[in-house]
Amino acid sequence: MTAEIISVGTELLLGNIVNTNAAYLAQQCAALGLSVYYQSVVGDNPERLKSTLKLALERSDVIFLGGGLGPTEDDLTKETVSELLGRRLVEDTHTRERIAEFFARIGKEPTENNWKQALVPEDAIVLDNANGSAPGIILEEKGKTLILLPGPPMEMIPLFETHVFPYLREKEPDVILSKMLKICGIGESRVEMELKDLIHEYQNPTIATYAKTGEVHVRVTAKAGTESEAKKLLKPVVRELKVRFGRNIYTTDENQELEDVIVDLLKEQNLSITTVESCTGGLLAGRLVNVPGVSDIFKQGYVTYSNKAKRKLVGVKKDTLSANGAVSEKTAKEMAKGAMLMTGSDIAVAVTGIAGPDGGSPEKPVGLVYIACNFRGKTVVQEYHFSGNRKKIRESSVTAALVLLRECILENIRL
Amino acid sequence: MTAEIISVGTELLLGNIVNTNAAYLAQQCAALGLSVYYQSVVGDNPERLKSTLKLALERSDVIFLGGGLGPTEDDLTKETVSELLGRRLVEDTHTRERIAEFFARIGKEPTENNWKQALVPEDAIVLDNANGSAPGIILEEKGKTLILLPGPPMEMIPLFETHVFPYLREKEPDVILSKMLKICGIGESRVEMELKDLIHEYQNPTIATYAKTGEVHVRVTAKAGTESEAKKLLKPVVRELKVRFGRNIYTTDENQELEDVIVDLLKEQNLSITTVESCTGGLLAGRLVNVPGVSDIFKQGYVTYSNKAKRKLVGVKKDTLSANGAVSEKTAKEMAKGAMLMTGSDIAVAVTGIAGPDGGSPEKPVGLVYIACNFRGKTVVQEYHFSGNRKKIRESSVTAALVLLRECILENIRL
Repeated sequence: MTAEIISVGTELLLGNIVNTNAAYLAQQCAALGLSVYYQSVVGDNPERLKSTLKLALERSDVIFLGGGLGPTEDDLTKETVSELLGRRLVEDTHTRERIAEFFARIGKEPTENNWKQALVPEDAIVLDNANGSAPGIILEEKGKTLILLPGPPMEMIPLFETHVFPYLREKEPDVILSKMLKICGIGESRVEMELKDLIHEYQNPTIATYAKTGEVHVRVTAKAGTESEAKKLLKPVVRELKVRFGRNIYTTDENQELEDVIVDLLKEQNLSITTVESCTGGLLAGRLVNVPGVSDIFKQGYVTYSNKAKRKLVGVKKDTLSANGAVSEKTAKEMAKGAMLMTGSDIAVAVTGIAGPDGGSPEKPVGLVYIACNFRGKTVVQEYHFSGNRKKIRESSVTAALVLLRECILENIRL
Repeated sequence: MTAEIISVGTELLLGNIVNTNAAYLAQQCAALGLSVYYQSVVGDNPERLKSTLKLALERSDVIFLGGGLGPTEDDLTKETVSELLGRRLVEDTHTRERIAEFFARIGKEPTENNWKQALVPEDAIVLDNANGSAPGIILEEKGKTLILLPGPPMEMIPLFETHVFPYLREKEPDVILSKMLKICGIGESRVEMELKDLIHEYQNPTIATYAKTGEVHVRVTAKAGTESEAKKLLKPVVRELKVRFGRNIYTTDENQELEDVIVDLLKEQNLSITTVESCTGGLLAGRLVNVPGVSDIFKQGYVTYSNKAKRKLVGVKKDTLSANGAVSEKTAKEMAKGAMLMTGSDIAVAVTGIAGPDGGSPEKPVGLVYIACNFRGKTVVQEYHFSGNRKKIRESSVTAALVLLRECILENIRL
């Protein structure tokens, strides 16, 4: 089956918002085995919406229409669809009740406009919206399916997951299973080189790579008649990837980030950690604190932006700074050691570098970063050369620090 | 004139990437006074691309085609366009030279495929791509304009700014001028209420609001025959907005963020600052360090995630913690005071709160945050109730801390 995504909204046409809904729906279609050949964006204009919709009905089986279901006069997706299909708009009693309840809950009075949201085209399947007053609507028409969804992602995504996904799953019985492998510590081109033969060899499952800052994600996707067949297709490829990338794979769980894996590792091993940051200025600690429950192993961190702070807070030696500079292997080492001693943590990670745009020199250019990891007195230091603007260099530094930290933990707990 | 944006790429159809290019081009069109009525996405498939393009040529004056200009066999935008317009592909000598230079610079050998990128349709205007090997291409055909752009944003955006914007500016002689006012310290609904009459009163300039985390941006846009006419249209509206929002407007410079304004203020007043963070875990310091040259006024910061760290690093009293808890007005106050005393800074900002998902209680629910600002011994504390997930609560806290900090500085330097 083929699917097409039509997004309705002037904000999209003006570029005021980015169309993340289309990307979400496209991903879901891929997971459901629906082929998306077209996406489009059109404003809240009945004529242009009608012509776009007509074309979609000629060429696609399932059509998603997102947005334009709000209570104002500008919102006319429902009206336009009803007119095109020659269906009357009728009041849905259940939705009217839900709208009344919704407004009671948020303690506001519904306006006359809000009741407009209880109107749906005849013979529609109405989908409850748990997070707003516009219901989702499914219309089946001569073998085609139209799915009307509210625009705000906070309403659309839960509604899709609860109602639309199961509905489409039944329509398209093929099962799509995918496995995500998240890789760190090796670059994108290396990963692609290592995968080249597999990507050519396999059509089902397919293998796709996505580069992130300091990471590469690899998705393996299989399509089959049943879940167990799909699993059987995935298995040998995933196994082969695990052999090729070994411990550079930090997780195979789609929802885990690098910091989640690290905090889990630290908790398992009962290891406490501290951070001491110069150019990243707190962002490394901030990444760790993304993880709920990090308090078990992370108690404090330092932002030592000036030389004086490096000396005063974590005891970097004056001589080290004057002989080697703040951005040096030796300073990074002493920062990590000092932070470990000051806090009594098992591990300390230190970052010092030149994020730019100023402050670079021929010997120490912008992008030069040193990261040190002290594991109970044993220190590893690495030198990095990152490119990009200030923001990019700082982000790359944070990810590199997490990668080095993970490496140190694995190295030490193996012993 | 009307414009239409066609994005070519399988990654977009699969939802692997979000179409930020379309949003960028749409914004630029708005700035140029071009009306965008349609955007679409199509894969690297000649038939589907051709039909999309045909339709666009029927209904729009300027058509942007982004992506599909790469060196591989999948990339066929140029070939498809040439075929549709009946133009031969010819080698552009200048581009061939640039490709040779480009590869020499990055120290790689061009492959046979790369030379394909020197081929352009006959009678094209060829636009140098400073950041890649695929040039941009402009084709004029029977009063319509086709603009082919490379897909990677890092190549497309600079190419657009350098070559396409001036080209289109000449085509559409109307001048669009806009002024951005960035507002903090009051909510979106308040801003909208205050603006309601102006939004209805004025058609030119138009007034549009955009909600950001903890901020509201207001853009006023005028269209006129000359720059001075456009300025004249903008002036009274911008003046009125300045009267209505007063010092809640933190900047009228599009490129300035809240942290930039604060760092400038601190530098002007020669005031030093430190941070002490619990739930935000370093993100507030990280925001300040976004600003190049922050080292003049920011030397160090603390991440005091545990109670012990709050006591040890910044001297919060044991009694305060046991009687009031870590998330309390009193703890926030003592954190700020302690950080100021420990570092000798003029100002200290402290954040303590419950970011969730766990750790909330009926008395202290998730989202409760206290922020204190100590200005040379004089302290202000505020209580906040933020909603959303852990990430959202932490982001809201960082912005609120910056807003409170700005308020304190303005309050104190006025005296």
